[in-house]
Amino acid sequence: MDRVVCKGYKWSGVYAGIKGRRKKDLGLIFSENPASVAAVFTKNLVKAAPVVLTARRVVNGLCHAVVVNSGNANCCTGEAGMRDAERMTRIVADALGVDEAFVLVASTGVIGVPLPVEVIERAVPNLVKKLSYGSLQDFAKSIMTTDRFAKVATVHEKMPGGEEFTICAVAKGAGMIRPDMATMLCFVCTDLKADAEFLSKALAVAVDKSFNAITVDGDTSTNDTVIIMANGAGKARISGDDEKKCFCRALDRTLMDLARLMVKDGEGATKLIDVRVRGACSAPDARLVADAVANSSLVKTAFFGEDANWGRIMAAIGRSGANIMPESTDIFFDEVQVVSNGLGCGLPAEEKAGLVLKRNEITLLIDLKTGGAGEARVLTCDLSTEYVKINSDYRS
Amino acid sequence: MDRVVCKGYKWSGVYAGIKGRRKKDLGLIFSENPASVAAVFTKNLVKAAPVVLTARRVVNGLCHAVVVNSGNANCCTGEAGMRDAERMTRIVADALGVDEAFVLVASTGVIGVPLPVEVIERAVPNLVKKLSYGSLQDFAKSIMTTDRFAKVATVHEKMPGGEEFTICAVAKGAGMIRPDMATMLCFVCTDLKADAEFLSKALAVAVDKSFNAITVDGDTSTNDTVIIMANGAGKARISGDDEKKCFCRALDRTLMDLARLMVKDGEGATKLIDVRVRGACSAPDARLVADAVANSSLVKTAFFGEDANWGRIMAAIGRSGANIMPESTDIFFDEVQVVSNGLGCGLPAEEKAGLVLKRNEITLLIDLKTGGAGEARVLTCDLSTEYVKINSDYRS
Repeated sequence: MDRVVCKGYKWSGVYAGIKGRRKKDLGLIFSENPASVAAVFTKNLVKAAPVVLTARRVVNGLCHAVVVNSGNANCCTGEAGMRDAERMTRIVADALGVDEAFVLVASTGVIGVPLPVEVIERAVPNLVKKLSYGSLQDFAKSIMTTDRFAKVATVHEKMPGGEEFTICAVAKGAGMIRPDMATMLCFVCTDLKADAEFLSKALAVAVDKSFNAITVDGDTSTNDTVIIMANGAGKARISGDDEKKCFCRALDRTLMDLARLMVKDGEGATKLIDVRVRGACSAPDARLVADAVANSSLVKTAFFGEDANWGRIMAAIGRSGANIMPESTDIFFDEVQVVSNGLGCGLPAEEKAGLVLKRNEITLLIDLKTGGAGEARVLTCDLSTEYVKINSDYRS
Repeated sequence: MDRVVCKGYKWSGVYAGIKGRRKKDLGLIFSENPASVAAVFTKNLVKAAPVVLTARRVVNGLCHAVVVNSGNANCCTGEAGMRDAERMTRIVADALGVDEAFVLVASTGVIGVPLPVEVIERAVPNLVKKLSYGSLQDFAKSIMTTDRFAKVATVHEKMPGGEEFTICAVAKGAGMIRPDMATMLCFVCTDLKADAEFLSKALAVAVDKSFNAITVDGDTSTNDTVIIMANGAGKARISGDDEKKCFCRALDRTLMDLARLMVKDGEGATKLIDVRVRGACSAPDARLVADAVANSSLVKTAFFGEDANWGRIMAAIGRSGANIMPESTDIFFDEVQVVSNGLGCGLPAEEKAGLVLKRNEITLLIDLKTGGAGEARVLTCDLSTEYVKINSDYRS
């Protein structure tokens, strides 16, 4: 009845009353064994209290539980905010009967409003009572803010020796996303046995390929947190390089799946655009071009309008700061070439491109043909009237 | 009857048929004397043909006429585009009976569509016929694209010795504006007598204070051009430092007036926001903060929603790259302080701020209190649903 999603992990998600409209707003992950843990955090200098507290505790290398609330970021809340974050973990630690030092915390929501910690305190007994192996969706829902759907990715894999392991990851995030560290919140659980040092390295690489290569609106949050836990409840363990590679591949895939879901759920997004740049002088140059295009409001609104307005793409390439030659640039929308050596391919090509733009997922390939081999890839979404509506109404 | 706007200058603006909806799309400025000339251009590596041609000719230091079209950027049009730009100036030079080398050209509109130069050729006789001292508004209208109103600023000043001079400037630009060189198009005419070298220096300083300190959508165009002409038709001349200062002050004011009009006319803008940063470690740091805040989609949509969501401002400050301390940051909306030492000032302050946000023009003051004296100022506007509508429909 209570299906196990990932061995040794229980989940729950309840309505505590932080959001003030009967939606789940408090979630808990509990690992029956103390799990090895690693994390990456926002690079924003304005850091929320839970980010500071969790960063401090994660160096222990062990974690029993993660408590998460939505509806309030507990950011710009001063010393009181730090006390509230600590208190939140203490209440949970007491209820679970574990050491407070092994409880991590994350928050997401409005900045600058005191955390209603009493409301959380009242909800914790129910939160703990509802813990079960199969309640992953409840947890996933409890951490949502403007997300339209819960984001979960689960991968079952076998090590070269045949031992199975599971990676189960949950994320939230629909706005305030840009490629610079930075997804919103993501919690990765695996039943692998691995040490914190290995987890830390594997996570940094996987985050770089996934969450650091997506953008919704070019904004970086104050609360971005990715936590990975490995509790060793399964049979797989890291015994050599082959196992490391096998796990890292699975982790990369899991986080890429989530990153893709995040962009698809970009606030107001109607299309997912996979920006690929090749032929740049260097990889950093390729990334400059990919970022400039993926973050251009003019490019993003043109995609929303399904308008093959490649001139805006050329303009974004030109101002990216990368060393490019306009007269050698090619641009493709999926299989249709619209720019050849910096010049438009004409009306028939644009008409074909117009049909491509009606698709929900489009690959925008930019070949700079500089003679270099620099490549980059960034996922982005279109910019719709809905984005503006969501973000002008968010607090009211 | 034909009122002189600026001595020795004639203007005209007609409908040639480039836009295909009976709006003026071809304009001409003619200086009876060959005028001293200087210019600044976009830093975008993708440069339109008229930008390349005008940059090449402006080094002559003399200019008789500037021909401008809207509705087509003549950009990403290859060698044919360059031939078209040259032909456009030749037709005008012939019709005016002046040397082609003294005719400059600028274009604005869609990128990547061949310039319909025959349409322009047919319209030039009428364009020249309609030249008159008073037709400034016709010219101003002919260079508009998504602008909602024509942008003209005229200043009459006296030199310390009593000689009068006039500066008359016309601009267009509503989107694709960001602080990095770069307004759209701006043409400055004065009846002062001055050499090209002085004009060049004065223009660079004035542009930096005005057009380089505004942002609408963080995009930089391929066609941005600011041209200044001084024909000496008046009595004032530059004879010493006092005259230089007097003229530069007047030029700064003229371009600042236009920059302000441009932001007010930002695509879909409902509010003008004057972002001022002080107390930064350095002036570049202050500018990083001002730019991050002024270009943040989340901050701009909050202003559109009249929501005193200062948390988004703190988040933008934190990711700006500047050396800041969140716990010493103050934020004011006009006279109302909403953040003190990184913490919100509470609900009464936010309610007052909510009233301030109903205003059409708001000063957003960020005092970083780092102990440094770095200051910066950037004008921006809010981001509305209308911006997205305008830019998703632009070509269709």
